[in-house]
Amino acid sequence: MTTQVLHTVHISLEERSYPIHIGHDLLAGESVFSGLPSAHTALIVSNTTVAPLYVAKLKAGLAPHYARVLTLELPDGEAHKHWETLNLIFDVLLANTADRKTTLFALGGGVVGDMTGFAAASYMRGVPFVQVPTTLLAQVDSSVGGKTGINHPLGKNMVGAFYQPQMVLCDLATLGTLPPREVSAGLAEVIKYGPIADMEFFDWIEANIEKLVSLDSVTLAHAVKRSCEIKAWVVGQDERESGLRAILNFGHTFGHAIEAGLGYGEWLHGEAVGCGMVMAATLSERLGLVDAAFVARLTRLIAAAGLPVKAPLLHAADNAGAYLDLMRHDKKSEAGEIRFVVIDGPGRAALRSAPDALVREVIDACNL
Amino acid sequence: MTTQVLHTVHISLEERSYPIHIGHDLLAGESVFSGLPSAHTALIVSNTTVAPLYVAKLKAGLAPHYARVLTLELPDGEAHKHWETLNLIFDVLLANTADRKTTLFALGGGVVGDMTGFAAASYMRGVPFVQVPTTLLAQVDSSVGGKTGINHPLGKNMVGAFYQPQMVLCDLATLGTLPPREVSAGLAEVIKYGPIADMEFFDWIEANIEKLVSLDSVTLAHAVKRSCEIKAWVVGQDERESGLRAILNFGHTFGHAIEAGLGYGEWLHGEAVGCGMVMAATLSERLGLVDAAFVARLTRLIAAAGLPVKAPLLHAADNAGAYLDLMRHDKKSEAGEIRFVVIDGPGRAALRSAPDALVREVIDACNL
Repeated sequence: MTTQVLHTVHISLEERSYPIHIGHDLLAGESVFSGLPSAHTALIVSNTTVAPLYVAKLKAGLAPHYARVLTLELPDGEAHKHWETLNLIFDVLLANTADRKTTLFALGGGVVGDMTGFAAASYMRGVPFVQVPTTLLAQVDSSVGGKTGINHPLGKNMVGAFYQPQMVLCDLATLGTLPPREVSAGLAEVIKYGPIADMEFFDWIEANIEKLVSLDSVTLAHAVKRSCEIKAWVVGQDERESGLRAILNFGHTFGHAIEAGLGYGEWLHGEAVGCGMVMAATLSERLGLVDAAFVARLTRLIAAAGLPVKAPLLHAADNAGAYLDLMRHDKKSEAGEIRFVVIDGPGRAALRSAPDALVREVIDACNL
Repeated sequence: MTTQVLHTVHISLEERSYPIHIGHDLLAGESVFSGLPSAHTALIVSNTTVAPLYVAKLKAGLAPHYARVLTLELPDGEAHKHWETLNLIFDVLLANTADRKTTLFALGGGVVGDMTGFAAASYMRGVPFVQVPTTLLAQVDSSVGGKTGINHPLGKNMVGAFYQPQMVLCDLATLGTLPPREVSAGLAEVIKYGPIADMEFFDWIEANIEKLVSLDSVTLAHAVKRSCEIKAWVVGQDERESGLRAILNFGHTFGHAIEAGLGYGEWLHGEAVGCGMVMAATLSERLGLVDAAFVARLTRLIAAAGLPVKAPLLHAADNAGAYLDLMRHDKKSEAGEIRFVVIDGPGRAALRSAPDALVREVIDACNL
């Protein structure tokens, strides 16, 4: 198969603007790299799972553009998204005397992208980087928008930077090697864009959910494109999450509590978000913002994507209390008040606080 | 003594602009804090040396503005400017459920300011912070301009961010407790502004060097003000050091080699910069840019400030080679080429590379 760019989405952030190329076999496509700032050295950061599949191909694509292409394999998984792993990137950069024009390529899923992005933001106070997301989740969400970071024992993504890549390459060919569970996890973030911003897209996802689950490539290309467009529109208006951008966290407040409560890695991020969207939609219903039919429809689609729709038990004696405690520690909380993204009518999201008693009812209603 | 703002210098960086207030007894001056963004929590980060002297005073000044004022004492010194110490700041923020409006106050010298600034840049991807520099070096240099970061075993300040404070408070009263060696180290960065940008200021420093060494407060206030103005002018044109800003590193390329070669902490940063300026001026002379009289005059002033003017031996067998190796690892190098800040005529700086042989001559000429 030859390199083919199917869609290009532009993220408009003044001098930090960048293109997202979506297509087939982009890794080895030398031409897409010609727009990047020139540099002597490139560093491909990947993980032990993805590297054997795609590093050689990307390295070949970069060879005409850089005198030296270094590679680094990080351990795979959310459990390694901490300082010690991040430091491996600085170690290899410094051991190779990499200068401040050195360009980093994040080849992998969200964890590789977040850590490589934060390393690029911080190495010598900022070097260029390119996102090459190889999971559906990363292609439709984490590689777009400039959020980078690592976890802290007391909270996820608590240390990081807003730092934009020079380019994002979404190579659909890399999705072929994804385990089905990760495909479903990625679809959670695709589905998310419907209720918060675009019910026509939601209709389309409903009509195409089987093709998406089975990785039909033309269908996937449209899902990635439309997801990136919506995210680009939101991020373009609120790069640093002072307002509107928070709507992208629909399902994430409950979802983060699930991830933290079960221990990171037990559920995939997308799985937690899938279930979290059911919970946030249920809260929206209890607040009188949407009807029960809407919640049921969203729940059906999430289930059809292969995602969990029932909330796990985090604590035997006071389960709702455990959820509330975890959510109060979320980054989006302010002075201990939890700010929920709710659906304020289909296709429109809003930020709301809610009485603890009501949130407890929602958690109980959504439990297994 | 009551709070008195003698000078205010404005740093113009669009929405990242901020004031530098210079005066007496500013820490306890509640009114200067009223311009800051409102927040529930403030965290004062200081060190074990400075905290006993000034934390109580600053805490009293902040009390009317924040419901909760937390404090943290870091171990003192450049040797602790690494990830483990930085993480103490994240630990206390997360243990106290500090939200994303929490404002950090860096109370101390350059190390405290660099680490607190990087923590503020990274905590939840960015919270507000205020620099309260208590050393002359930090007041005239490190607290202005938004450079933050930590050291890596393979290089100083290799991991960090450009991140601007909301405000800088230069309280001259805090300089009274500085050891003489640190006063001299601060004067190195004051002297620096003369040869690179303003020979009238250089004349003034020459005429007032004794008053400065003995901490005369009106003289100091002017020195801090003029230093901040020159730095503000440079940083305002080149926030992220893509060009002009590099001139602020006059003396720093040789200076960093001295610091790294002797082991960080052996010489103070300002001492290494003092000697580094003699070396960089000598290089400028060898390149035919300034005459010997200028080098001699600068050397005399640096000595009068109580600073070393002879370069230490870093390696018995190949001393110049050791300097060159270290300088090639400096952040300002590109693809292994060392970029020196030279004096291109008194009051004007430029970036230049130079043949290794010539640099070796300079190092030998400046050696003890």
